[in-house]
Amino acid sequence: MPSCIEKIEAPEIIKESMIYSLNAGGKRLRPILLFATLHAFGKDEKLGIDVACALEMIHTYSLIHDDLPSMDDDDLRRGKPTNHKVYGEAVAILAGDGLLTHSFEIIAKSKELSDTLKANIIAFLAQAAGPSGMVGGQVADLLGEQKDLNVEELEYIHEHKTGKLLRFAVVAGAIIAGASKDQQECLDQFARHLGLAFQIKDDILDIEGDVKQIGKPVGSDVGKDKSTYPKLLTLEGAKNKCNDHLTSAKEWLEKANVESDLLLEIADYIVNRDH
Amino acid sequence: MPSCIEKIEAPEIIKESMIYSLNAGGKRLRPILLFATLHAFGKDEKLGIDVACALEMIHTYSLIHDDLPSMDDDDLRRGKPTNHKVYGEAVAILAGDGLLTHSFEIIAKSKELSDTLKANIIAFLAQAAGPSGMVGGQVADLLGEQKDLNVEELEYIHEHKTGKLLRFAVVAGAIIAGASKDQQECLDQFARHLGLAFQIKDDILDIEGDVKQIGKPVGSDVGKDKSTYPKLLTLEGAKNKCNDHLTSAKEWLEKANVESDLLLEIADYIVNRDH
Repeated sequence: MPSCIEKIEAPEIIKESMIYSLNAGGKRLRPILLFATLHAFGKDEKLGIDVACALEMIHTYSLIHDDLPSMDDDDLRRGKPTNHKVYGEAVAILAGDGLLTHSFEIIAKSKELSDTLKANIIAFLAQAAGPSGMVGGQVADLLGEQKDLNVEELEYIHEHKTGKLLRFAVVAGAIIAGASKDQQECLDQFARHLGLAFQIKDDILDIEGDVKQIGKPVGSDVGKDKSTYPKLLTLEGAKNKCNDHLTSAKEWLEKANVESDLLLEIADYIVNRDH
Repeated sequence: MPSCIEKIEAPEIIKESMIYSLNAGGKRLRPILLFATLHAFGKDEKLGIDVACALEMIHTYSLIHDDLPSMDDDDLRRGKPTNHKVYGEAVAILAGDGLLTHSFEIIAKSKELSDTLKANIIAFLAQAAGPSGMVGGQVADLLGEQKDLNVEELEYIHEHKTGKLLRFAVVAGAIIAGASKDQQECLDQFARHLGLAFQIKDDILDIEGDVKQIGKPVGSDVGKDKSTYPKLLTLEGAKNKCNDHLTSAKEWLEKANVESDLLLEIADYIVNRDH
């Protein structure tokens, strides 16, 4: 993916900053979910390559902006200094802006998609990433830091901050593959439950995980007195809820009536991972 | 335009913050240029309404981010407190992100444009606004603050930071109107010269203008020791250069062979305005 950034005619520092965060690793969960969904319909992954790149760029931009001093003020991300620690706040903000903007260009110029698909997917992605989706979730997260949240409020944050883009990954794959409306709906519910399981697992790992594995200090959320699932439900309760969502996810996947082997593997990985 | 923001399902504070900056006034130069270009081809302005909204949203997001403490650190914009002064840095960054993201949704969902036009215009807009355009210009501007620039370097900044979006406004209007490649090229050059005239005039007003009219302290660029056209060329030289660009703009407009009355009026306004 960084090769497509290198080609942009822009000051070197902004490209370096964008590539730094794109290359910082991470699980590539969103592209993987998109490709696995195409696979579930027997379609070539290549059809989704541009949307997958765009998705990872938007995810990366959101991490750069979330880490800023005026937001979560994090120094480490995936075990490396955060973007603004390396390039300064101004360039970090602009690298995020650049990734977000460029992601739409990549989809709009895709050689794999019809113009109608491009328009539909761009509208869907902007909705998932914008004020009614990820950006709205980040705002709710910021507001929530000042108070004790209940489970519903915590769920609202996660369903928007991370959930909407995960659902986009799966449903965009289904749309590109030509899935029926019914299948899209089942896969959307699959991804919704998977996203919640993912988030609860993150909270559990923040308590039980190993700093080398998760790339940030263990207990960092507790230290900030953030509302988490284990805090609201006990660790045991959070583990149960995580498994409940995994079960629901698998039920919806079953209903979608697709070749579900890869998607099932990803679902199990999300709940059993140690980082 | 704010009514389309009010309808978004999102936390109130982010909508309020987005609307605050959209309503802060400004000349609406980009939408006006787009509408005037449609008019030059005898087309209904309505065809461009969604692209014009998106364009103004992207311009507004760029102002919000430019004003941040880690960027230009401005307290006033158009005579009102800047977004982060009212809503705090975190919400201001997210309001910018939200406006940028939502602008692509608006175009992708436009009822006025074919899917092919949507894809073309989104690719063009993202290129004009992203790292190879406006974002790249802002990076160059930040880097340039630390040194004395020559006219070519100053021109690079303006051609990217403001020029690319102004050119988009005109050329997008031409594309929507079904202009020939030749006409698009002539209008692109018209907009390029107009953009440079606009920027030189801004620098002149920073020296000669009235604080009430321009909404920020007169001489604020000089105070920051920023490179400006009058500083590099003398005030007289800057005025001459401004007029030269206006003349070139008009020559290109002539070559485009369209009903040019409105576009000519805008060009004259840009050079003769007092704020």
